[in-house]
Amino acid sequence: MRLIDGNLIAQEVLAEIKARVARLAPIIPHVAFIRVGEDPASVSYVTKKQKTAAEVGMQASIKVFPETVTQADLFKHIDALNADSSVHGILIQAPLPKHLSETDVFNRVASQKDVDGFGTLSIGKLVQEIPGAFAACTPAGVIELLKRSNIETTGKHAVVVGRSLIVGKPAAILLISKACNCTVTITHSQTKDLSAIVRQADIVIAAIGKPKFITADMIKPGAVVIDVGINRVADATKKNGYALIGDVDFENVSKVSSAISPVPGGVGPMTVAMLMKNTLDACERANARG
Amino acid sequence: MRLIDGNLIAQEVLAEIKARVARLAPIIPHVAFIRVGEDPASVSYVTKKQKTAAEVGMQASIKVFPETVTQADLFKHIDALNADSSVHGILIQAPLPKHLSETDVFNRVASQKDVDGFGTLSIGKLVQEIPGAFAACTPAGVIELLKRSNIETTGKHAVVVGRSLIVGKPAAILLISKACNCTVTITHSQTKDLSAIVRQADIVIAAIGKPKFITADMIKPGAVVIDVGINRVADATKKNGYALIGDVDFENVSKVSSAISPVPGGVGPMTVAMLMKNTLDACERANARG
Repeated sequence: MRLIDGNLIAQEVLAEIKARVARLAPIIPHVAFIRVGEDPASVSYVTKKQKTAAEVGMQASIKVFPETVTQADLFKHIDALNADSSVHGILIQAPLPKHLSETDVFNRVASQKDVDGFGTLSIGKLVQEIPGAFAACTPAGVIELLKRSNIETTGKHAVVVGRSLIVGKPAAILLISKACNCTVTITHSQTKDLSAIVRQADIVIAAIGKPKFITADMIKPGAVVIDVGINRVADATKKNGYALIGDVDFENVSKVSSAISPVPGGVGPMTVAMLMKNTLDACERANARG
Repeated sequence: MRLIDGNLIAQEVLAEIKARVARLAPIIPHVAFIRVGEDPASVSYVTKKQKTAAEVGMQASIKVFPETVTQADLFKHIDALNADSSVHGILIQAPLPKHLSETDVFNRVASQKDVDGFGTLSIGKLVQEIPGAFAACTPAGVIELLKRSNIETTGKHAVVVGRSLIVGKPAAILLISKACNCTVTITHSQTKDLSAIVRQADIVIAAIGKPKFITADMIKPGAVVIDVGINRVADATKKNGYALIGDVDFENVSKVSSAISPVPGGVGPMTVAMLMKNTLDACERANARG
C-alpha cells in the first residue's frame, strides 16, 4: 500500500508556484478574499489560504463583511475587485448566510478571476474542455494528486461517490475529459447496490460527507482511493474537542487498496495549493493579454 | 418488447406546445435560424425545423450566409437578433465551416435565447441545475422519451455510450440531476470492457456514431435502450442511395430489451420537438419579464 501524501505533493506544487511567481516580478499575483460573518471553519480556511499565498510570494487581501451584509453591498465590492487590474483572483468563502444567493454571488465574479471555479461559466468551460477553464480547487486537487502519484487514468474506471456541485460533479467532469480519459460512474444517495458499483472501480473518489462510509469490502484489491471527506467527529482526546475523519475507513481500506490518500493530509492541502495555481494562472494570463 | 415511438411522443409534445402557443396570442414565439453554406443535411434539418415551427403556430425566420462568411459578419447578425425583442430563440445550424470557431459563435448567442443549449453558460446552468437552463435538444429529447414512456429513472443505472459535447455529456448531466436521479456511467472510445459495463445498464443511451455498434449480447434482459445514432449507410434499394441506421442493432437488441427507440422515428423527431419547447419557454419567460 502506497500513501498518497497530500502534504508532500502540495509542497511540491507550491515550490513550483513560488518559482513561477518569482519569475513574474515585479508583477505580484494577487488573490482577494471575501468572508461573510465569523464562522470558525471559514475563518480558519481563509487564514490558511492567506498564509499559503504569502509563503509563495503572492499578495492576499481580505474584506470581511458582517453576517447581515446585503447582496447589493457584496456586489458593489465584487464589482470593484473585478475592475481592479491588480487583482487576479477573487475567492468568496462559502458557505454564505441564507439571505444571499450563492449562485448569484459566485456568478458576480468576473470569469477570468473566478479562481474558485464556482461560477456557471467556469463549470460550462470545464464541460466543454475549453483551455484555461478554472476547475474548482478540490476536484482539481484530486486530479493533481493522481497525476503526481503517476497513477494511470486512461481507460481506468473511476467511481465518484457523491454528486455535489463543488466536488462530485466537477471531479466526474474532469475524469471523463480527454485529459484523464477515465470511464466514469457517478453515484449518490439514490444509487442502488452502491457496494457492487464501487467494487468495480480502479479509482474511487469518496465525496459523500459521511465518516468512514467507504469500507474495505467495497474496494477492489489494488484500487486507488482518494478521500475527499472532511468530517468533524467529537473526540475528547483532542484539544479542540473534535477529530477530522474522512469518508473512507482508512485503517481497513488501506489494507486492500494499492494507494490511498489520508484525512487529514490528503486532498485538503491540495485544495489550497490549487487555489494558488489558479490565481497564478489568472495572473499570467492577464499579463499575457497586456 | 415495447417500441418507444418518437414520432408519436413528439406529436404529443407538439400538440401541447401548439396549445400553449395559442394561449400566448397575440405574442408569437419566434425562432431565428442561421445557416452557413449549403450542406444538404443542414438544409434538410433546418427545413424540417422551420416546417415544425409553422405547424405549432410559431414564427421561424432564416438567414443563410455563404460558406465564406467572416466571423465578424456572423457576430453582427447574431448581435442584431440578440437585441431584437421579437426574437425568442436563435439556432445556428452546426456544423460550421472550419474557419469559424463554433464555441465562439454559439457563445455569441444571448443566454436567454440559446434554445439550442450549446452555449457555455447553458451547459454550466445544466450542471448547476439552475431552473430554466436550456438543455441541448437531443439529450433533452432523450429524457423526454423516457419520461413520457413512464420509465422510472430514480436509482436506475444509466450507461451513456459516447462523451460528445452535444449528446453524451449533456445526457449524462441530465441523468445524474435530481430530476432523474440515475446512477450514471459515461463510456467512450478508451473504455475497457465496454460490453460488461453496458450489460449492467438498466437504461442504455447509445450515442457513439457507429452503425449497429450496440449488439444484443451487450444488453441486460429487460433494459431500456435509447438509440441516438443517425448513421448514413449506403443502400442501393433507397431512392436517395442511403439508409439511416442507428447505433443499435435494433433487430436483435429489441428481442432482449424491455423498451427501445428506433432509428429513424426515435430521438430524431424529439430533437425537433424540444427545440420548439425551448423556444416557447424562452418566449414565455421573456414575456413574464415584461
